Amino acid sequence: MTDLAPHVERHIESAIANLATLVAFPSIAADQTTKMDDCVAFLEAQLADLGGAVQVLRLPGARPLVFAEIPGRSPRSLLFYQHYDVQPTGPRDLWQSEPFTLTERDGYMYARGIADNKGNLAARLAALRVLLDAEGELPLTVRFLIEGEEEIGSPHLIAYLEQYDHLLRADGCLWEGGYRDPNGRLTLSLGIKGICKLHLRVHGPERDLHGKYAPLAKNPALRLAAALSVLADSDGTVLAPGYYNPVRKPNEQERIWLDDAAGDVDTMQREIGLGPMPVNDGRAALERLLYFSGCNVAGFVAGGVGSEGRNIVPAKAEAALEFRLVPDQEPESVYGQLTSHLVVNGFDDIEVSYVHGVLPARTAPDHPLVPAALGAIEAIYGQPPVVHPNSPGTGPMSNVCHSRGMAAVAMGVGHPASNTHAPNENIGINDYRLGIEVVAELLRRFAEI
Amino acid sequence: MTDLAPHVERHIESAIANLATLVAFPSIAADQTTKMDDCVAFLEAQLADLGGAVQVLRLPGARPLVFAEIPGRSPRSLLFYQHYDVQPTGPRDLWQSEPFTLTERDGYMYARGIADNKGNLAARLAALRVLLDAEGELPLTVRFLIEGEEEIGSPHLIAYLEQYDHLLRADGCLWEGGYRDPNGRLTLSLGIKGICKLHLRVHGPERDLHGKYAPLAKNPALRLAAALSVLADSDGTVLAPGYYNPVRKPNEQERIWLDDAAGDVDTMQREIGLGPMPVNDGRAALERLLYFSGCNVAGFVAGGVGSEGRNIVPAKAEAALEFRLVPDQEPESVYGQLTSHLVVNGFDDIEVSYVHGVLPARTAPDHPLVPAALGAIEAIYGQPPVVHPNSPGTGPMSNVCHSRGMAAVAMGVGHPASNTHAPNENIGINDYRLGIEVVAELLRRFAEI
Repeated sequence: MTDLAPHVERHIESAIANLATLVAFPSIAADQTTKMDDCVAFLEAQLADLGGAVQVLRLPGARPLVFAEIPGRSPRSLLFYQHYDVQPTGPRDLWQSEPFTLTERDGYMYARGIADNKGNLAARLAALRVLLDAEGELPLTVRFLIEGEEEIGSPHLIAYLEQYDHLLRADGCLWEGGYRDPNGRLTLSLGIKGICKLHLRVHGPERDLHGKYAPLAKNPALRLAAALSVLADSDGTVLAPGYYNPVRKPNEQERIWLDDAAGDVDTMQREIGLGPMPVNDGRAALERLLYFSGCNVAGFVAGGVGSEGRNIVPAKAEAALEFRLVPDQEPESVYGQLTSHLVVNGFDDIEVSYVHGVLPARTAPDHPLVPAALGAIEAIYGQPPVVHPNSPGTGPMSNVCHSRGMAAVAMGVGHPASNTHAPNENIGINDYRLGIEVVAELLRRFAEI
Repeated sequence: MTDLAPHVERHIESAIANLATLVAFPSIAADQTTKMDDCVAFLEAQLADLGGAVQVLRLPGARPLVFAEIPGRSPRSLLFYQHYDVQPTGPRDLWQSEPFTLTERDGYMYARGIADNKGNLAARLAALRVLLDAEGELPLTVRFLIEGEEEIGSPHLIAYLEQYDHLLRADGCLWEGGYRDPNGRLTLSLGIKGICKLHLRVHGPERDLHGKYAPLAKNPALRLAAALSVLADSDGTVLAPGYYNPVRKPNEQERIWLDDAAGDVDTMQREIGLGPMPVNDGRAALERLLYFSGCNVAGFVAGGVGSEGRNIVPAKAEAALEFRLVPDQEPESVYGQLTSHLVVNGFDDIEVSYVHGVLPARTAPDHPLVPAALGAIEAIYGQPPVVHPNSPGTGPMSNVCHSRGMAAVAMGVGHPASNTHAPNENIGINDYRLGIEVVAELLRRFAEI
C-alpha cells in the first residue's frame, strides 16, 4: 500500500489553512443571533470539492445539517458524525489570543472549537483529500453527518434522523472526538454513557413562611432530602429495585483493556480535582468511572444559606438529578423505576419531571470497525491506544448509531490540556497531522477487513 | 380605686402625638448609616418628664440602650423590655402612605414600627402619665430597658446585661409586644421559644466538576441529604438521642389554656398560608405550634436547578438549620447532641457551625405577674385573654428575664393584620387606647397582689 505520510506532508499547509477558515466562523449554537450560513457554505464547498454529493438538510427551527456522500471503491461505507457548532467563548480576557482567529504558539494551535470539533472535522476532510491524492479514489464510501446543534444538546437530531433515515446510514461510524491520555497515548472509545435527567420538586407552605410556623408546616427541603436518601446511598448507588439489572459487566476483552488503560489514581485525582474518592486504586477507579451508573445531584435549592439565609420555612425545594446510564439501561425505564420507588416508599408528594434522556452505547469488541481502528492507530502512532469500552461522558451516539444498528468508535486530535469548552482551547500541530493520517489509514483498513 | 378611663381619654391626643413623633425617627437598626441620637434624645426627654432617672447606656460598636427608673409606692418593681429600633421599610411603593409618617385611615394608624414596637413603647409611657395624673404617683417602681438592636438579633444585649446587671432587674417584666387573636381576643403570652441555628457544610470535589466524573467524586448534596435524614424525620422530629429529654409537657393549667385558645385549623391554615399540615385538629395544632421543638431546614443550596442548572458535581453543599427550642432545652446542649448524632452515624465529614443560640423561656402560671395580667386584661377588655404558655417565636426574653430569675409576660396593641415587618404596618386607635389603660391597670394590680 502507498505510504500516506508524504501525501499528508504535501497537504498539511492547506489543511491548516482550511482549519483556520473553519474556526473563524463564530458558530455558537447557544447564541440565537448567530448566522450559520457562511460556515455551512464553506463546508458545502469543501465537500463538493472532494467529489461529494452534498445536501444541506433543514427542519423548521433547527440549524441546518450538512450531509454529503463521497463514493469509494469497497461496498463498505463509513459515516462521520461531526458538528460545526461551538461553545460560547466565555470571558474574552481569559483568552491569550482572539478566540475566532487560529493562532499558533509553541507547536499548538488555539481557537474556540479547534478541539471540539472543528479540528477533527478539518482533519477528516484533509484525510479524504490525501487519499484521493494518493490513490485516486476513496477506499470506501464516506458519508458526513455534520450537525449544528451538538453543543446545545442536539435538540433536532432525532427529527433529522427520522426524516432522512435512508441517507444517514453506513456500515459503521467514526464519532466526533477524542484525546490523548495523560501518558500521551491516544484514547479509542467504543461508546458513551447515556443519561436520564430528572427535576424533582416538593411543595411546602403556600409561600415562604416565618420559621416560627415550622411545627405546622411541611418542610420541603427536609422532605426532598429524605426522598434523595431513599433514592440513593450517599456514594450515589441507586436503591430503586431493578435499576442495575440491565447493566452489562465488562467482558473478557473489555477487562483486558481496562487493565491496560488503568493509570495512577493520585494523578487522576489531582488532574481532575476530584477531592475525596470512593476508591483508591487506579484500575477500580477506571472501571467505576466507565461502568458505574449512579445518582448525581447536580443541584439542590431551597431557601438560602449564609448571607442569603432567612428564617423561613421555604415554599418549595427543587433538585436536578443526573443518572449517567450504561448499557443496557434505558432512560425511560430508569425514570419509571425511580418514580415507582419513591411512591412505594410513601413519597408520592415529590413531583418528578423527566427533563432529558439519552441511551448509552457500547460497540462490541468484535465488530470489524474495532480491529480496523486499533490497527490504524498502532500503525500511525507506533503504539496501541488506550481503549475505553465507553467514555464517561454522554452524547447522541446511540441515537445516530447503535439504536439504528450501527457500530461506532471515537478518536480525535485532542490532548489532556486541550481546554475543551474553556478559554484557550487548543490542539497540537503534530496531533493534527497524525489525526489526518490515522483517519486515512482507518478508511483503508475498514475497507479491507 | 380611681376609674382610669377618663384619664386615658384626657391623654389620648397627646399619646398619639408622642407616637407620631416616635415613628417619625427612621430608626432602622439594619442600616449602619442610621443615627439613633434624635430618637434616643426624645425617649430621654419623655422619661425624664415622667420623673425618671434616665441613663443612656453605651457599649463600643453598639446602639445605645436607654435605661430609666421611675419610683413608685409599692416595694414591688416591674421592668419594661422595649426597643426603639425598627425593621427596614421594604419596597416603598407597597406602602399606601409614608412609612415614617403616622397616617390615620379608618380607625387605624399606619407607620413602620407602630406595631413592633413603638406603639407599645408609647402606650406604656402614656400609661405612666395617666397613672401619675390620676394618682399622683406610680403604684410601683418601673424600670425601662429600651434597646436599639432588637431587629438585628440583639447582638449586644447580653453584654449590656452583664455590664449593667444591677440596674436591669425587677420583680417581673412586661415584654415588648402582643396581638389580638383572629377572634379579637387579646393574647397573653408567658414565654417564648429559644433557638439553635446551625450551618452545615459538606465538601465534595475541589471545584465544580463535570457531571461525567460523578462516579469518582463525592456528591456533597447527596451526602448532606443523607445527613439531614439522619438528623430528623421528614416531619421535623429530631432523631438525636436525648434531644427531647428536657422538654416540659404542658401542666394542668397550661392544658386548660390550650383548650381555651385552640381555634379552627382551617382558618389557621388559610391565614398563615401553611399548605399541608401534620395535624388537622385545632387543639393539636396549637399545642404542636407552641410545644414542638423540631428541625427546620431554612435553606439548602448546592449547584443550581432549572435555568440555573449545570451538569456538574457541585463542590459543596450547605444547609441552614433552625431548631426552635422549648423549655428546658438549651442551644449548646442541642448543638452537642446533633453533632454527636452525626458523628455516631458516620457523618464526621459534615462541618457543623454554631451560628446563634437563644434559651427558651416560660413563666410559671402561679407567678403573681400572671394573675395580675389576667385580671387587668379581663377588667379592661371585658373578657379574659387567650393565654399562650409561650409564643411560637423567639426573642431574648430568657436572657433578660428567666436566666436572671425574673418572670415575664407579653401583651401588646397589635391585631392579626398589623403587618409586622411588612409594608403598611398598623395598629387600631382603639387598641392603642386600651393598650394604655391595660398597662396602667396591670401596674396597679401587680403592686397589690
